[in-house]
Amino acid sequence: MIEPDPALGPRPAFNPPVPYEGAFPNSTRVFVEGPDGLRIPMREIALSGGEPPLRVYDTSGPRGCDVREGLPLLRDASVRARDVRDTGRSATVVRGRRDDAAPLPATLVRETRRGTGPVTQMHYARRGEITPEMAFVAVREGIDPSFVRDEVARGRAIIPANINHPELEPMIIGRGFKVKINANIGNSAVTSSIEEEVEKLRWATLWGADTVMDLSTGKNIHATREWILRNSPVPIGTVPIYQALEKVGGVPEALTWEVYRDTIIEQCEQGVDYFTVHAGLLLRYVPLTSERVTGIVSRGGSIIAKWCMAHHRENFLYTRFRELCEIVREYDVSLSLGDGLRPGSIADANDEAQFAELRTQGELTRIAWEYDVQVMNEGPGHVPMHLIRENMERQLEWCDEAPFYTLGPLTTDIAPGYDHITSAIGAATIGWHGTAMLCYVTPREHLGLPDRDDVKAGVIAYRIAAHAADLARGHPGAQAWDDAISKARFEFRWEDQFNLSLDPVTARAFHDETLPAEGAKIAHFCSMCGPKFCAMKISEDVRRYAREQGLDDAEAIERGLNEKAREYRMADC
Amino acid sequence: MIEPDPALGPRPAFNPPVPYEGAFPNSTRVFVEGPDGLRIPMREIALSGGEPPLRVYDTSGPRGCDVREGLPLLRDASVRARDVRDTGRSATVVRGRRDDAAPLPATLVRETRRGTGPVTQMHYARRGEITPEMAFVAVREGIDPSFVRDEVARGRAIIPANINHPELEPMIIGRGFKVKINANIGNSAVTSSIEEEVEKLRWATLWGADTVMDLSTGKNIHATREWILRNSPVPIGTVPIYQALEKVGGVPEALTWEVYRDTIIEQCEQGVDYFTVHAGLLLRYVPLTSERVTGIVSRGGSIIAKWCMAHHRENFLYTRFRELCEIVREYDVSLSLGDGLRPGSIADANDEAQFAELRTQGELTRIAWEYDVQVMNEGPGHVPMHLIRENMERQLEWCDEAPFYTLGPLTTDIAPGYDHITSAIGAATIGWHGTAMLCYVTPREHLGLPDRDDVKAGVIAYRIAAHAADLARGHPGAQAWDDAISKARFEFRWEDQFNLSLDPVTARAFHDETLPAEGAKIAHFCSMCGPKFCAMKISEDVRRYAREQGLDDAEAIERGLNEKAREYRMADC
Repeated sequence: MIEPDPALGPRPAFNPPVPYEGAFPNSTRVFVEGPDGLRIPMREIALSGGEPPLRVYDTSGPRGCDVREGLPLLRDASVRARDVRDTGRSATVVRGRRDDAAPLPATLVRETRRGTGPVTQMHYARRGEITPEMAFVAVREGIDPSFVRDEVARGRAIIPANINHPELEPMIIGRGFKVKINANIGNSAVTSSIEEEVEKLRWATLWGADTVMDLSTGKNIHATREWILRNSPVPIGTVPIYQALEKVGGVPEALTWEVYRDTIIEQCEQGVDYFTVHAGLLLRYVPLTSERVTGIVSRGGSIIAKWCMAHHRENFLYTRFRELCEIVREYDVSLSLGDGLRPGSIADANDEAQFAELRTQGELTRIAWEYDVQVMNEGPGHVPMHLIRENMERQLEWCDEAPFYTLGPLTTDIAPGYDHITSAIGAATIGWHGTAMLCYVTPREHLGLPDRDDVKAGVIAYRIAAHAADLARGHPGAQAWDDAISKARFEFRWEDQFNLSLDPVTARAFHDETLPAEGAKIAHFCSMCGPKFCAMKISEDVRRYAREQGLDDAEAIERGLNEKAREYRMADC
Repeated sequence: MIEPDPALGPRPAFNPPVPYEGAFPNSTRVFVEGPDGLRIPMREIALSGGEPPLRVYDTSGPRGCDVREGLPLLRDASVRARDVRDTGRSATVVRGRRDDAAPLPATLVRETRRGTGPVTQMHYARRGEITPEMAFVAVREGIDPSFVRDEVARGRAIIPANINHPELEPMIIGRGFKVKINANIGNSAVTSSIEEEVEKLRWATLWGADTVMDLSTGKNIHATREWILRNSPVPIGTVPIYQALEKVGGVPEALTWEVYRDTIIEQCEQGVDYFTVHAGLLLRYVPLTSERVTGIVSRGGSIIAKWCMAHHRENFLYTRFRELCEIVREYDVSLSLGDGLRPGSIADANDEAQFAELRTQGELTRIAWEYDVQVMNEGPGHVPMHLIRENMERQLEWCDEAPFYTLGPLTTDIAPGYDHITSAIGAATIGWHGTAMLCYVTPREHLGLPDRDDVKAGVIAYRIAAHAADLARGHPGAQAWDDAISKARFEFRWEDQFNLSLDPVTARAFHDETLPAEGAKIAHFCSMCGPKFCAMKISEDVRRYAREQGLDDAEAIERGLNEKAREYRMADC
């Protein structure tokens, strides 16, 4: 973890505290000093009334960098210190590409590296080493670094951190840690541009996305991803089969292992931190979906299903899985075993097809571990509340406690336009039961591609779900945030209440629409009750009165009450 | 249940199917014929592709009536058939009023009635009678009327239906029925007008509010309530102590039983269907809140607490509770035992104060039942997910399975501006565990008074929570809605998918922003994947292929695969 390479020219300073202009008033980005010069970013919220500032987990990355230059190369030194060699290629060299015409600025070009053997966090953890990445996440989570190492070694947690993504601020995904959330972005054949996608990345991480998946399927897949990676402080995930499909003209039957292999090497060199791989979808599982209400709804799953059926052969991602592991471990790309048969409706939840694939995900998890490859398992989709827990329990059992990474689940099908809510309910529930990362759903799910507002709405709904799960799981320190905002609320510190909220500007706007006067924000009342009568004000009075009268316990009250009752002859008391 | 009284002049026809213009395209209000000429309203959604129409529960009431005339008097005959007499007063006569200057149109004036003894649904149920209201809700819920009667007799369900609210379309609140939601409206000293409040009522019931609470605290409380009741097809609840407090100049210490009693009689005569009564908050519980992070946050609770402390006497609502029951049973007003000590923050959840009050709510529940008074219990507030279930279990045990009616609960404190989401998570969870009615929370909670958009956002978030709970509880028929929309989605019947959603216009708008062309709504693809590749389309192909190849079971695939493997010598298969 070093300062930016001077050879890459001047970059914006990021060491001094930088205000979160606009989105987070009274917040500054601060750094906690870790071992060996590590500096772990946090967001510090300054409070009034003599209250100490609150520090919260921060995913938003260095501020003020030029997107054409990319972020500082924080991990450059730690990666160089590993068993790696230069490939001699820059990531702009695309093997087998056919669709990329978008120019890449010279300032974004990076040399790429490859391990001379396994260079995964799991590899080092199993050797007993605490890597800089492990030390970083330990401080970030407030958890002992040896626990981090042991969880990674055991496979119960992963640190997705490609050696070719030196811009990354490391984070950890596992049941023993803060629940994480992923935001999907990506263009499609129909809409959106590179600029929009980079802006969505910055926007999603500003609001709290812990990882971002680039699900582009249209033009300029390679270039879009390059811009995203060079500007991403969070791990980037992809579904490589989407790009492989583009390379063969969009015809699933034309896919080959060779095209897929070249695609993953291309993405490994670019710095993608984790791949969704639908290797658990076996040919014999496909007919299990034929009586479903919504068949196969996963894009990756349906591509694989179509390939398997067309050739009447087993899924090549399954048959070539060991080769895949041998490649990705030399870049430390983590695998996210896709759930191609996830249910797309309440009617299809927890069915034979879904659970058959989950069992195979478990088999593949153990194979990945043979290669020191970090791995997590993808799950849910549409699942009613009473069937959620079974998903978590089976995954823990069948997949040996590898981290679970679930889409939602959506707990009903009837609210398109509001699926950030139908799924936040399911996400909070499965997060509480042990899911390590929640893949967000935006209000636009099922209807179109999310825009800026949808991305924000999805991220905030999922920050709520993840935090609710952290509270329920008793994650150390989680409740401090709730306590700080509730204390501010009770003490009528309006500005602090706004600034401590997940979205201060919206909270303030809601307040100001009812009571716009600046004075109302220091008044000891609010618009719900008005100035003459206020529940919280009365409650304060009650507290003072109780102290004055020495009525500080229920027994004293009871005694006093009995005396008064005799005095007043309260017959019915 | 009769047609409108001709003496009241012409009213808009409501018998023919009326289209839900604007909000629900392709929906019409239809009537299911019940026993004895009962006509139970449902919303019927017409579908394309030869699919049968779907009928869903409908709370929106008769359409097109003039607010100055009020709704048709559906229950007039059934009420007249009971043991009731005219009071000789119209509801415009306000005993003890001090703040009402708003004129009431003559067309809204109604004669008021009172029972000559108990006239509650519980009273008739215990005598073994199935009232028209019970028959109505049985059809509405698709459940046997004798089950309805037995649940009401046992106190496990209530039908809030004041004899002075003949406009009501009866509904039932109980663990054996569809989970209901309540929307709060009401002006305050600071903002809003009568017209706005009536409009909020119509708006809230259009989107699916099962009951509405009028929590007005400012000017024109009586007149506002009168307009609301005469135009409400759903039960109206109030917190009578708010109006009583207005009558004594806003000074809690000045409250007396007499002022409160006159206020409830006034509201009984107007037709309020249920009262929140904070009778369970005893003087000795008040000091239990003094170490809380957020003390007492219930308005009613803090009024009572202040009164108790000022006089050092027991809560008069507790000491006069039997007198209260004797009054309300002659109008069939249900009691909702308030939770004045509900937690206002995660830190205060499930504490001694909260549970002490809940025990007393149980004691009062049994007293109410002695008087044949229908009763439910109010609960939660802010409760983290892992502490939710304990609330439900204790309520069931201590309150003898009377219906539970909970605010949220909010599962974290950190998201003001999004508390419809923080609380929808908790509401769905507690609904699944057995809560009968969920009191909504809008995005404006903690910040200001909800406007039209906030009311809609809150109602829809809670319809989602309630439906998710219905699915999890296996309510008969609940999943038919999910199945219908999922089938439409899978078959690319876009218009049907929009029309089947909780908010068709929003769903359509989200779709059209990405793909505005009319043709896109009949195309077999969507903007997420584009025309060339679509998961659902592939899935359809797979299904057809599977049939063609006779690959309709996993064993056949396995056999075929093994043969192919031999054929191709797939070493690693």
